[in-house]
Amino acid sequence: MSDLPATVEIHEEGPREGFQIEPGPISTADKIRVIEALAETGITHIQVCSFVNPRLVPGWADAEAVVSDFNAKPGIAYTALWFNAAGLERALAFRDKLHVTGAISLTASEGFTRKNLNRSHAENVAAMRKQTALHLERGVPVKRIGVMAAFGCNYQGDITPAQVISTIEDGLSIAKEAGTEITLFSLADTMGWATPARIERTLGEVRSRWPDKDIALHLHDTRGLAVANAHAGMRMGVRQFDSTVGGLGGCPFAGQKGAAGNICTEELVLLCEEMGIRTGIDLDRLIEVGRLAETVVGHQLPSELIHAGSLDAFRRKAA
Amino acid sequence: MSDLPATVEIHEEGPREGFQIEPGPISTADKIRVIEALAETGITHIQVCSFVNPRLVPGWADAEAVVSDFNAKPGIAYTALWFNAAGLERALAFRDKLHVTGAISLTASEGFTRKNLNRSHAENVAAMRKQTALHLERGVPVKRIGVMAAFGCNYQGDITPAQVISTIEDGLSIAKEAGTEITLFSLADTMGWATPARIERTLGEVRSRWPDKDIALHLHDTRGLAVANAHAGMRMGVRQFDSTVGGLGGCPFAGQKGAAGNICTEELVLLCEEMGIRTGIDLDRLIEVGRLAETVVGHQLPSELIHAGSLDAFRRKAA
Repeated sequence: MSDLPATVEIHEEGPREGFQIEPGPISTADKIRVIEALAETGITHIQVCSFVNPRLVPGWADAEAVVSDFNAKPGIAYTALWFNAAGLERALAFRDKLHVTGAISLTASEGFTRKNLNRSHAENVAAMRKQTALHLERGVPVKRIGVMAAFGCNYQGDITPAQVISTIEDGLSIAKEAGTEITLFSLADTMGWATPARIERTLGEVRSRWPDKDIALHLHDTRGLAVANAHAGMRMGVRQFDSTVGGLGGCPFAGQKGAAGNICTEELVLLCEEMGIRTGIDLDRLIEVGRLAETVVGHQLPSELIHAGSLDAFRRKAA
Repeated sequence: MSDLPATVEIHEEGPREGFQIEPGPISTADKIRVIEALAETGITHIQVCSFVNPRLVPGWADAEAVVSDFNAKPGIAYTALWFNAAGLERALAFRDKLHVTGAISLTASEGFTRKNLNRSHAENVAAMRKQTALHLERGVPVKRIGVMAAFGCNYQGDITPAQVISTIEDGLSIAKEAGTEITLFSLADTMGWATPARIERTLGEVRSRWPDKDIALHLHDTRGLAVANAHAGMRMGVRQFDSTVGGLGGCPFAGQKGAAGNICTEELVLLCEEMGIRTGIDLDRLIEVGRLAETVVGHQLPSELIHAGSLDAFRRKAA
């Protein structure tokens, strides 16, 4: 009936996704406070910053300061995000502290590629070909293909499984040419178009085409269906998810202000742990980090769970 | 694999649930504006008020004024809520305008019954026996058993399927004694303890015990899992759901202020319609009502979808 996994690996992206979208500046010290608190929850992957142009993304002008100053905990893969050669070099300067890996990042929607990157899909493929070669030259492994807008697009509408498969094929041919082996496809619901049925259909087709590859999901809760979509993904055997504590993030592509961003880490952990799927994460500690993040950004975050409290906390009181 | 229904019937409870919990008073005219706007969306069931003690629930002191003054649309069942004989009589005064039906309302958690009603379960059963007889005497049909806290309780912890079944049995024996036939069990996740796995287990046991009864779900999004739980319910064949537009409501039993209440009607409709399950509801109109409700209460509502916009709206723009 279902392929529910025994364990799920969660990649926390709250610091990176959350702190760049806030209108007010978040201090370097507060960013570090959240990163260090996350490290105490049992999370094994934390994306700590973006190495991007500070003129375009002023919220990450302090990326170097954050990475220099946080205390790294052994056993945790701290990651970062970058989009070009300059960003890669900035990440490589922290090679001892950061887990530096590359990805072939493509978009299933030509409309979104044009809007977001001001490129055609073909131009994006060419750029990724160059970037993949550069990563490998610098000794950075590239084992992942990321597909943005894999379930639909605010600018182009519905995205079919065939479009996702064709995008992955483009990524695989870049990888083949560069001589690197892809082990993971990461499918992103960048603008919140996924539904459980769409997850089942797209993942079903991808999985039957490439049964030996792992699939990760990067889900957004733009329209409230992210947890249902995560559950559908788990039922299809997905064992790796990106998420953000408290639901930090938001969506710059939505129709109105105040739209939700990524799936909340703590709701994903609740879903897993209550169904017997291990995450290795202490949910009560994580909820405390969500509340800390809410204090840091200074407004209510989308996570319902940080306001309601965990079931275990109530179980302990009731016992 | 699954018993997904072809159609789902949604019972809108936003006006009743939402307007009593707000700290500021909501004007009678605003309540009516939301009720009349809901009637234009295709929704067929709208709960418009509570006939409760105005000293205890000042937000519904104007129940009579609301029911007198809204323009009823033919084909819509307008309902109300009450807890005692006085409330029943107040509802019956509007028998021409309201769809007046009764329910045997019990709670699967003794802890919650004591906390919420200040009664033992046995005392509650006795009260329901009296109330059922009274409804039938007054010509009000009683065909529904409601089970609150059917998936867990902040005061008692986990609730097993056996506890739900035993509660339903108590309800059925009240019905039998009163000479009325029950056709529907309504299971409420009053404090947000349900998970998809728990929905499957509890509904599976109830359904195999009473295969000829319909099951409705009243879900709360207290911990962010409501949409995933609704999907699990649909997969078990559930065709009737309560919900509130915009996620109006909130939870008085949660650990902190700002906790979410009922599942959002528009997210439930999105889930259904995108999976080919008909609701008869115009989602774009419903989203407009969610935005109206947000204006009326004067603060951001939990619904993500009213801030993001429907997929159809973006499809039309993209086309």
